Amino acid sequence: MTQLYAERTDEYIGLIERELDRLIPGAECLQGRVMEAMRYSAANGGKRVRPILTLEFARLCGLEVRAALPFACAVEMIHTYSLIHDDLPCMDNDDMRRGKPSCHIEFGEDTALLAGDGLLTLAFEVMLREYDPKCISPRSAITAAALLASNSGVNGMIGGQVIDLMSEGKTIDIETLRTMDRLKTGALIDAACRMGCVIAGAPREKLDAAGSYAAALGLAFQIVDDILDVTGSTEELGKPVGSDAENKKSTYVSLLGLDACRDAVRRLTDNAVRALAHFEGGTEYLAELAENLATRKN
Amino acid sequence: MTQLYAERTDEYIGLIERELDRLIPGAECLQGRVMEAMRYSAANGGKRVRPILTLEFARLCGLEVRAALPFACAVEMIHTYSLIHDDLPCMDNDDMRRGKPSCHIEFGEDTALLAGDGLLTLAFEVMLREYDPKCISPRSAITAAALLASNSGVNGMIGGQVIDLMSEGKTIDIETLRTMDRLKTGALIDAACRMGCVIAGAPREKLDAAGSYAAALGLAFQIVDDILDVTGSTEELGKPVGSDAENKKSTYVSLLGLDACRDAVRRLTDNAVRALAHFEGGTEYLAELAENLATRKN
Repeated sequence: MTQLYAERTDEYIGLIERELDRLIPGAECLQGRVMEAMRYSAANGGKRVRPILTLEFARLCGLEVRAALPFACAVEMIHTYSLIHDDLPCMDNDDMRRGKPSCHIEFGEDTALLAGDGLLTLAFEVMLREYDPKCISPRSAITAAALLASNSGVNGMIGGQVIDLMSEGKTIDIETLRTMDRLKTGALIDAACRMGCVIAGAPREKLDAAGSYAAALGLAFQIVDDILDVTGSTEELGKPVGSDAENKKSTYVSLLGLDACRDAVRRLTDNAVRALAHFEGGTEYLAELAENLATRKN
Repeated sequence: MTQLYAERTDEYIGLIERELDRLIPGAECLQGRVMEAMRYSAANGGKRVRPILTLEFARLCGLEVRAALPFACAVEMIHTYSLIHDDLPCMDNDDMRRGKPSCHIEFGEDTALLAGDGLLTLAFEVMLREYDPKCISPRSAITAAALLASNSGVNGMIGGQVIDLMSEGKTIDIETLRTMDRLKTGALIDAACRMGCVIAGAPREKLDAAGSYAAALGLAFQIVDDILDVTGSTEELGKPVGSDAENKKSTYVSLLGLDACRDAVRRLTDNAVRALAHFEGGTEYLAELAENLATRKN
């Protein structure tokens, strides 16, 4: 990892986490419990890949990073709400999330359901209320927020969750698996990257390049997940390995084999890096991010 | 009921229901089941009071009714999602909604959860994608969508649901009851009325008047609900009466008595009608709507 990469990542994560803390309302009211639950889940973050992508694409297209923060936080709120709802007993019924009790274990199912609804709603409030009209035109703010809505709705992330539910316990073909992942994880990564360009007022060519980068990155990310479930160690992953095989889940590894999967990750990562040629320099960070995700151990 | 009122109501309901049908995506895809569930719940509508308020306030402030439709439908989508999530087993656990099986009984809990998420997300997509920039400025569209987000979030509708959950099986005081209802039902009615004025570019004075009308209407609506639970008949209401007393729920009737409640409804309805004086004529429809809600039997 280069120093530039490490420093910029730290800087971005600091900005994102302070802003999330500021944006989620305080708990000094009758309904404080739901705000506490929102804060609990938002603070239990992972790599913050999605909001980092929004900040970096915005910077690359010439926008002040500070101005991109409401949009980056909105993407992370959508991601967080989807994890809270995914963990609920009527969905994946997961008691733990990143080594801590899931939201419904800590706060109860009813509060967790409403905390998810609250974060989803707050994502839109934040983009529309906090965007700075001195840096971002109202039309660009609308296009960005509409993009996030569309990519996280039933033709995007939620659609992917539905296909996942319907595929439980079944063998699915590679086409269905691709569609599911393109929607379930790809759509939000696509929104994260393209929103950064949209709010910076970038031309169509750059938007398309950000979309190509996102598509390659999102699929590579998912294939690496499947590889690690077979080759990783429980210590490195922080969760049990082999769960896909145990649950008879169709994965890229079960459908294509390990070697073809490793080739695909290499090819997709090269494609992601190549898409960055449409920007005028300064793309080292995004190239390294793609490489790091491809070679990650957890 | 006057002929003007009956005709305009029919016209509005027709417009709203056709537009909802058009806006909810079709079911010809792998995730079609969730779209079917969204359509099922959106079609099982009640009086459509909230979207009617948006259309009528927009018309009153000089906007074409057609241009207000995306915002009216967004309000109704938010209302519908809140009912789907409210009916879930971890919340009120209601098997029936308006004489039909609730969404989770018909489609399963997982699909119902995601259908609610889908409608909430679609509400924002629709406002931001479908608003007509020839009639509504981008800034007004943003203000209206931000208002709906804020009023339906944890400091609005969701906040009221949390207070409701926390009050279960407890006696609460009149202040808590007022706060709960102001958030749980009042906030969305407030957004419905004020959004109509915002998208029409109305001045501050009219927005405030719409807010006063909404506050009086929303509280009167809730008090009438409580009165009907004591004095109504199961046939007229289409649901069992006396459920509040049975569940030991604190209501306006249990806290203030029937006579004081009837007085309050009269006074609030007069206040709602009086707030309409800030508009230049053409307010007969909204005055009659307030009267009809005050004297309704179901």
